[in-house]
Amino acid sequence: MPGRNAFYAQSGGVTAVINATACGVIETARKHRAQIANVYAGRNGIIGALTEDMIDTGKERASTIAALRHTPGGAFGSARYKLKGIEENRAEYERLIQVFQAHDIGYFFYNGGNDSMDTALKVSQISRKMGFPVQCLGIPKTVDNDLPVTDNCPGFGSVAKYVAVSTQEAALDVLSMAKTSTKVFILEVMGRHAGWIAAAGGLAGKKPGDAPHIILFPEIPFKKRGFLKKVRQCVNDYSYCVIVVSEGARFANGKFLAEAGTRDAFGHAQLGGVAPVVANMVRENLGYKYHYAIADYLQRSARHIASDTDVKQAYAVGKAAVEFALQGKTAVLPVIKRVSDKPYRWTIESAPLGRIANKEKMLPRRYISSDGFGITPAARRYLEPLIKGEDYPPYINGLPKTARLKSKAVKPRLGKKFVV
Amino acid sequence: MPGRNAFYAQSGGVTAVINATACGVIETARKHRAQIANVYAGRNGIIGALTEDMIDTGKERASTIAALRHTPGGAFGSARYKLKGIEENRAEYERLIQVFQAHDIGYFFYNGGNDSMDTALKVSQISRKMGFPVQCLGIPKTVDNDLPVTDNCPGFGSVAKYVAVSTQEAALDVLSMAKTSTKVFILEVMGRHAGWIAAAGGLAGKKPGDAPHIILFPEIPFKKRGFLKKVRQCVNDYSYCVIVVSEGARFANGKFLAEAGTRDAFGHAQLGGVAPVVANMVRENLGYKYHYAIADYLQRSARHIASDTDVKQAYAVGKAAVEFALQGKTAVLPVIKRVSDKPYRWTIESAPLGRIANKEKMLPRRYISSDGFGITPAARRYLEPLIKGEDYPPYINGLPKTARLKSKAVKPRLGKKFVV
Repeated sequence: MPGRNAFYAQSGGVTAVINATACGVIETARKHRAQIANVYAGRNGIIGALTEDMIDTGKERASTIAALRHTPGGAFGSARYKLKGIEENRAEYERLIQVFQAHDIGYFFYNGGNDSMDTALKVSQISRKMGFPVQCLGIPKTVDNDLPVTDNCPGFGSVAKYVAVSTQEAALDVLSMAKTSTKVFILEVMGRHAGWIAAAGGLAGKKPGDAPHIILFPEIPFKKRGFLKKVRQCVNDYSYCVIVVSEGARFANGKFLAEAGTRDAFGHAQLGGVAPVVANMVRENLGYKYHYAIADYLQRSARHIASDTDVKQAYAVGKAAVEFALQGKTAVLPVIKRVSDKPYRWTIESAPLGRIANKEKMLPRRYISSDGFGITPAARRYLEPLIKGEDYPPYINGLPKTARLKSKAVKPRLGKKFVV
Repeated sequence: MPGRNAFYAQSGGVTAVINATACGVIETARKHRAQIANVYAGRNGIIGALTEDMIDTGKERASTIAALRHTPGGAFGSARYKLKGIEENRAEYERLIQVFQAHDIGYFFYNGGNDSMDTALKVSQISRKMGFPVQCLGIPKTVDNDLPVTDNCPGFGSVAKYVAVSTQEAALDVLSMAKTSTKVFILEVMGRHAGWIAAAGGLAGKKPGDAPHIILFPEIPFKKRGFLKKVRQCVNDYSYCVIVVSEGARFANGKFLAEAGTRDAFGHAQLGGVAPVVANMVRENLGYKYHYAIADYLQRSARHIASDTDVKQAYAVGKAAVEFALQGKTAVLPVIKRVSDKPYRWTIESAPLGRIANKEKMLPRRYISSDGFGITPAARRYLEPLIKGEDYPPYINGLPKTARLKSKAVKPRLGKKFVV
C-alpha cells in the first residue's frame, strides 16, 4: 500500500536556489514511496492548494527534477499571500484541510520565510482540531537572511556571492576610469529591514583602501554630513569611492532614503531607488562624476554565480524536511547549525516552527565597523564560508539550461470553487 | 641587441576582457625580445604617455601577466581623453613623439574604440613627419559593438552574455511571482547609440511567449501607445512582461526617454535612468506592479560570466597586433572576420585604421523584428556564437582571483612636466 501524498509550496520572493530545495524534497520523497506516494506542488504557492490547482510532480522525469537544482526562480510559482489569523479567516484554513483530505495529503512542506513558518504552524494546529492531522514542516528560504535560530538561510549565500563578486568587478572598472571619468560608483542591493546583503558587499574588500569604501546599512541611521565627508576622503585618498547601499538605508527618523527621493515629471513622489538619491547627494555636494547600478531581481535570480555552499544547504534542508516528516515530526523546520568557521562545517537540526515564526534577525552591531561604514572581521568570518565555492549550471548555446516542467495538473476532486 | 620598446594604452570605457587583450600583447611581445625589448603601459591610458607616467610591464611576473586574462577593468588605468586634431593641438602630438623618442618606443598599441583608432592614425602620420616613425597599431575594444569593418568587437560578447543570462534568470523569477506580485520587469542596458547590447537580451527567448517580450532599441523611435498596448497584451497572454531597454532608447524627435524623466526633490532634471521612466509609464497607464534593474557597470565588468568566444578573441587581437607590428605593418588594426555561423569559425585580418576611425555601426534593421520589439533569426545567427562558452576565472574564498600588478613606473627621462 502506497503512503499518503505530500503537498509542497513555495512562498514569497524566490531565490536562486529555492528550486534546489524543491529538488531535495522531491528526490528524497521518491525514495520513500511506501510512506510518501507522490508530491503535489502548489501552482503559485499556497494559492494552488486553496484553489485546488496543484502540479503532479510524479509526472515529471527524474532528469527534470534533477535540473531543478540549477534552475532559478520558483518552478511551480510562488505567491505573496499571507493567510490571516485563524479567527479572522477560518474559511481559508478549512478549505486547505478539505483539499488535503480530498487528495489524501498527509504532509505539508512550506518553503518560505517567517510568515510561512507561522502559516505552517497554524495549519498544523487546525488540521488536528479538524480531525485530519497533517504533518506540517517548514523549510527556510530567504535572500534576506533574517530568520532567527538558523545560522543562515538558504538563498542568502548566493545573493551574497553575487553582490560580493559584482562589487569587486565593478570596483576594478571604476578604479581604471577614475582619473578622467567616474569617481563614485553606487550599487543598490536588497534588504528592506536587515543589512545582511549589503554586508556581503564588504567581502570584496580585503585590505585598507579596497572597495567597497562605504556600506550603508539599514541598521545604521544615515547621516549626510559624515557620509559626504567619507566620500570626499576616499576620492582624495584612493582616487575613487565605491558605495554599497541597502534599499533599506534610512535616516535617524526612520524615513527611508529612497523616499527622500525623486519625483517624476508630474511631481509625483517616485517609488524605489535609493541609489539615485545617494548619487544626487554626491553630485550636488561634491560634484564628482558618478554611476549607479540597481541589482534588483538580478541579484536573487543569479543562479549562474550561485554559491556552492548555498546550493548544498538549499538541497539539504529540502531533504531533511522530508526525513523529519518520515520520522513522524511535525510543526518543525530544518535549520542550519554552524559547527565551525574554519574549516567551515555545518549540520542540519530541527527547530520548532514557533521559534521562527514572525521574527526577524538584524545584522548584529558587532558585525558593523565602529564608523558604521564597513564590516568587521567577525562579519567576515561569518559571511565568507557562505559564498564559498561555485556551482555552475550546465550551458547550451551560451545560456544556462533550466528545467522545463510539464506541470500537469492534479485532477480536482472538489466540486466547489474557492476564490482567493 | 634588443629591439625597441613598445607602448600600450587602454582607452575609453573598459570591458570585462580588455585585460585579456593586454595579456595577448605582452605575452606575444615577450616571445620576440629581439624586436620588442619591453612593453610600457600608459598609466591611465594616453595620459600616461603625455605625462611620461608609464608602467614597466617587464617588472611583472609571467603569472601576473597571465592573470590579466581573467581580470576585469583596465589594469593600467584607462582614460576618456581624446586628442584633438593635429592643427588644434600640435603640442600634444609632439609631446607624445618626444616621450616615445626618449624611451626608444618604436611601437604604439592603442586599445580602444573608434576615437582611439583615429588618434593612432594621427600619431602614425605625425611621427613620420617628425622624423621618428613609430609603428602605430589599433586594437579594437568596445562593449557597444559599434565599430565598422570588424565582424564584432572584443568586449561585446561578454556583455551580451551577461545581458542574455541575466534576462533569462530574472524572467524565471518574475514569472514565478506574477500571480500575486510583480508583473512587469525592466532591465536597463548600455548602448547609447546602437542597440547591440539590448538585442543580446533577445537571445534569452527561444519560443513565442518567452521573455524578453519587448526590447526597446535606440534604432526604433519609441511610441508610447504601441508600447503600452504590447505590455498589456503580454501580461494578458503570458501573465508577465519582461522588457529590455537600451539607455539610448528615444522618441521620434530624437529625445532620449531618459531625459523625459525624473526630477529630484529640488525639481532639477535628473540624469540617466531610462528604466524608471518606462516603469512609471507602465504604472500610470496600466497599474501593474513592476520592478526594474539597472545593470550599469556590472554588465561590462562581469568577467565571472565572460563569453569564452570573447575572451579568445580579445586575446587574439592583442596577439595579432603585435604580430602585425613585427611584420612591419603600421596604421592598421586587427579585425575579426567571420568565416561561418554554424559551426562558428573566425579569423583575424588586418584593416587600415582609416576605415574604422570615427565611424559607427548601428544594429541593421533586418536584425529587428517587424514590430520593432524583438530580434530576428538573422540577429540570433549573428549573436549566438558571440556568447558561446564560459571562461571562468579561478576563485579564492568565494571571490574571483585577479591580477595584482606591481605597477612599477618607468623612470622619466624628460625634465619637462606636461600638463594635460
